[in-house]
Amino acid sequence: GAKLLLGPVQEVDAAEAIGSLPRTLQALAFRLLPKDEAIEVYEYLDASVQQTLLERLRSGEVLELVEEMSPDDRVRLFDELPAKVVRRLLAELSPAERRVTAQLLGYEAETAGRLMTTEFVDLKEFHSAAQALAIVRRRARDTETIYSLYVTDGSRHLTGILSLRDLVTADPEARIGDLMTRDVVSVGTDTDQEEVARAIQRYDFLAVPVVDREQRLVGIVTVDDVIDVIEQEATRDLYAAGAVQAGDEDDYFQSNLFTVARRRVVWLLVLLVANSGTSAVIASQELVLKQVVVLAAFIPLLIGTGGNVGAQSSTVVIRGLSTQRIQAMGAWRAIWRESVAGALLGLLMVLAVVPWAAYVAGSWLVAMAAGLSLVAITTLAATAGAALPLLFDRLGLDPALMSAPFIATATDVAGVFIYLQTASWLLQRAAPG
Amino acid sequence: GAKLLLGPVQEVDAAEAIGSLPRTLQALAFRLLPKDEAIEVYEYLDASVQQTLLERLRSGEVLELVEEMSPDDRVRLFDELPAKVVRRLLAELSPAERRVTAQLLGYEAETAGRLMTTEFVDLKEFHSAAQALAIVRRRARDTETIYSLYVTDGSRHLTGILSLRDLVTADPEARIGDLMTRDVVSVGTDTDQEEVARAIQRYDFLAVPVVDREQRLVGIVTVDDVIDVIEQEATRDLYAAGAVQAGDEDDYFQSNLFTVARRRVVWLLVLLVANSGTSAVIASQELVLKQVVVLAAFIPLLIGTGGNVGAQSSTVVIRGLSTQRIQAMGAWRAIWRESVAGALLGLLMVLAVVPWAAYVAGSWLVAMAAGLSLVAITTLAATAGAALPLLFDRLGLDPALMSAPFIATATDVAGVFIYLQTASWLLQRAAPG
Ligand SMILES: [Mg+2]
Ligand SMILES: [Mg+2]
Ligand SMILES: [Mg+2]
Ligand SMILES: [Mg+2]
Ligand SMILES: [Mg+2]
Ligand SMILES: [Mg+2]
Ligand SMILES: [Mg+2]
Ligand SMILES: [Mg+2]
Ligand SMILES: [Mg+2]
Ligand SMILES: [Mg+2]
Ligand SMILES: [Mg+2]
Ligand SMILES: [Mg+2]
Ligand SMILES: [Mg+2]
Repeated sequence: GAKLLLGPVQEVDAAEAIGSLPRTLQALAFRLLPKDEAIEVYEYLDASVQQTLLERLRSGEVLELVEEMSPDDRVRLFDELPAKVVRRLLAELSPAERRVTAQLLGYEAETAGRLMTTEFVDLKEFHSAAQALAIVRRRARDTETIYSLYVTDGSRHLTGILSLRDLVTADPEARIGDLMTRDVVSVGTDTDQEEVARAIQRYDFLAVPVVDREQRLVGIVTVDDVIDVIEQEATRDLYAAGAVQAGDEDDYFQSNLFTVARRRVVWLLVLLVANSGTSAVIASQELVLKQVVVLAAFIPLLIGTGGNVGAQSSTVVIRGLSTQRIQAMGAWRAIWRESVAGALLGLLMVLAVVPWAAYVAGSWLVAMAAGLSLVAITTLAATAGAALPLLFDRLGLDPALMSAPFIATATDVAGVFIYLQTASWLLQRAAPG
Repeated sequence: GAKLLLGPVQEVDAAEAIGSLPRTLQALAFRLLPKDEAIEVYEYLDASVQQTLLERLRSGEVLELVEEMSPDDRVRLFDELPAKVVRRLLAELSPAERRVTAQLLGYEAETAGRLMTTEFVDLKEFHSAAQALAIVRRRARDTETIYSLYVTDGSRHLTGILSLRDLVTADPEARIGDLMTRDVVSVGTDTDQEEVARAIQRYDFLAVPVVDREQRLVGIVTVDDVIDVIEQEATRDLYAAGAVQAGDEDDYFQSNLFTVARRRVVWLLVLLVANSGTSAVIASQELVLKQVVVLAAFIPLLIGTGGNVGAQSSTVVIRGLSTQRIQAMGAWRAIWRESVAGALLGLLMVLAVVPWAAYVAGSWLVAMAAGLSLVAITTLAATAGAALPLLFDRLGLDPALMSAPFIATATDVAGVFIYLQTASWLLQRAAPG
C-alpha cells in the first residue's frame, strides 16, 4: 500500500498491492489513486477484488468507473457479476457504451468477438498522411492501440491496414489509400480464441482486426490479450494431460478443497471404471496365475512401461496438433511413425527386461512371456497414443482429452490381457496336456 | 510459389511457400522477391531452408543477406550453422555488425541477452518532442520497433522510457525528460527467458529493455519473440508431463525415427528401473499372493488410481509454479491442501472399489485390503505429487521433471508394498498362527 503513495508505479503492481490489502482497506487505497490511473488499475484487479470495490464505492464512483472502462475489460467484469447487477449497471451506462457492451456480451465465450475491443483508429483512403496523424493524435487517449491503423470504406468494410510506423515515416501529403497494404489478415467475430492467437503469433502482429459476416470491421484483438489466451490454453492442455478437469484454470489456487475434489473426482471415476476392466481380466486368468504366481510381479512393470510409451506418443501428437506442426506430416504418417517408434522402444527395453525377469522370477518362461508381451504392448500403446488424439481431432473433439491417463488406462487393460494370454500359451507349450 | 508473383503477401506466408518448394527451386523463388522484402522473408525461413539458400546463393548475395539481417535473427541463424561457416561469415561482416553479433553470441542460450535485438531508438532527456520525433522517423527503417522509446544518459544508463503514443500526443516543445516515465521495468542480460516472458505478460509491454551489470541499456526483447518463448516453455512442460525428453521441441516432426527413439528411451529406462522395484516388492511378497491369488487382480487398479491422483497434484503444482500462482499460497499450504484432497478422493473412491472388489474376488478380506490401502495410496500420491515438484523448485531444479510419470512410478512401488502388507496383516488376523 505504502508504495502507492510514493510515486508512479505500474498499474498491475498497484492492482496487486490493493488486492493484497484487507477487504476493508481496498476501497480506501483505491480512492487514493489519481483518477486517470484508477481505471487502468481497476482493469487489472482480480474479479473478486473488482466486486468488493463495486460494493464499497459510492454508486456515483461505480458508475464513472464502469463507464470509463475499456469495453473488453468491462465485458470480462460483467461475466463475473450476478445477472441482476449487470442489468442495473447496463441500464446506467451511456447509450453508446451500453450498445457496445451488449454487442460484445452477445458473442460466444472464447471467440474473437468476446476478446476484442471496439476502440481502434479507423481512417479513410482519401485522408492524407498529415490528416491521418491528426486523427491518431486526437484518438490516442481513448483507443487501446494506435500502432495498428485500419482503413475502412463508407460502409465500414475493412479495405486496408497500415502501421503508425508507416504513417510517421510517410510524406505528409501522401494518400492513405496509397500508403496502406491491402493484403489484410483478419479474423471473424466467431473465430475461436486459439485461432486468433495463432494468427498473431504467426504474423508477429500487435493486433488483428475482427470483421463480421459482412466483412465490416467491428473490433481488434490485441497481443497482450492473446498472450493470456496462449497461457490459458497451455494450462488447459497440461491439466488434460494430468487428468484434471478443465474449468476456471485461473482460480484453482483460490477455490476451496471441496470444489477441487469435485473437479477431480469425475475423471478419476472414469479412469477407475476402465481400471476395473483390468481387475476383471486378471481375475478371469486366475488359473494361469495360480500355476505361476510370480507372473504377477511383472504386471505393474509391463503396463507401466506401456503407459509411459503411450503417454509419449499422445504427448507429441497432442502438442503437434495444437502448435499445428503435425498437419504438415499428415495423420497416417504420424501414426505409422509412432507405431514404429513404439516397437523400436519395446525391442530396446526387452534387452533389460528379459534378464531381469529371469533373475527375479527364476523362470525363463516368465521372462519370455514378459519380453514377448512387452513389444506387443509398447507397439499397441504408441499406436493408440497417436491414433486416438488424431481421431478425436477428426471428430471435432478436443484431442487433449485423449491424453496420457486415458491412453495409459486403456493400455493397462490390453496389457494384462496380452501378458497373461502369452504366459498361458507358453505354459501350454511347455507342459502339453 | 505462384502466389508470390501475384502481389504483396505476408513475409511468413512467402517463407512457408518457399520452404515447401523442392530444394532446387528455393533459391530461384527467393531471388524473385523484391530486395527489401527478401531479408524479412529470409528471417522467417526454417533453419534448414536458410542453410540451403546459403549454399545455393552467390557469395555476394549471401553476404548482403547476412549483413542486413536483424542481429537477433542473425544470431539464431548462426546457432544452427557449422562453426566453420560462422567464422567465415563473421569475418566478412562489417565491423559494426560483427561486433554486435559476437556480443550476442557471447550470452548464454535462453537468456534475455540471447533473445534481444540491439536495434532500438534511444533518446536523450534534453531532446524536445519534435527533435525526438525526427530521430524516430530517421531510425524507423532499421529498428525492430519504434513504439517503445528509451532514454539514456551520457554513459548509456537507462533513465526512462516513453511510448510513441506519448510522443505523438505531446506538445512539440516539451522536453523528453519531462514526458518520460522514470519507473522503468527492465531485465538483465542473463535473465532467464521465462522471466522475460513473465515481465512482458504481466505488464502488457510490447518490449522490455535489457540492461547489463552496470545498468547500461544494451538491447530490447520484443513481444513477438516472447510469444515464441511462451510456446516453447509450454511445450517443454507438456513434454515433461509425458516423459518426453526436452530438446529441440520445434523440430520433433522433422527428426528421424532413431533420433526420436533415442530421445525417449532415456526416460523410459529410468522409469523402468523404478518399475523393477515394483516387481521386486511383489516377488518378495509371493507368499501372500500364493495364499490369495486374486489379490493380484487389484494391483493395477490400486497403483493406477494412485498414479492418477498423484498426476493431478503434480500437474496443478507444476503449472502453478510456472504461472507463479502458487507462490501466493506458500509451499506448505499447497502440500497440505493436496494431501487432504488426496485423502478425500481416496475415501470417495473406496465407496466404489470395495463393493467391486468384494464382487470380483468373492472375498471380503481382499476387498478390505484394497479399500484400506487405496486411501493410504491416494494420500501418499497426492502428497508426493505436490511436495516433489516444490522440493525440486526449492533446490533450483526444474519442477517439471517431477511430473506425472515419475510420481506415478514412485506410487507404484509404494502402492504394491502398502497393499500387500495390508493384505498379509489382515490374513494373519483372520487366521492367526
Ligand atoms: Mg483498458
Ligand atoms: Mg477453444
Ligand atoms: Mg511469431
Ligand atoms: Mg485488451
Ligand atoms: Mg488488457
Ligand atoms: Mg487446445
Ligand atoms: Mg527483423
Ligand atoms: Mg529456462
Ligand atoms: Mg498481460
Ligand atoms: Mg525480434
Ligand atoms: Mg522476430
Ligand atoms: Mg519451465
Ligand atoms: Mg500407470
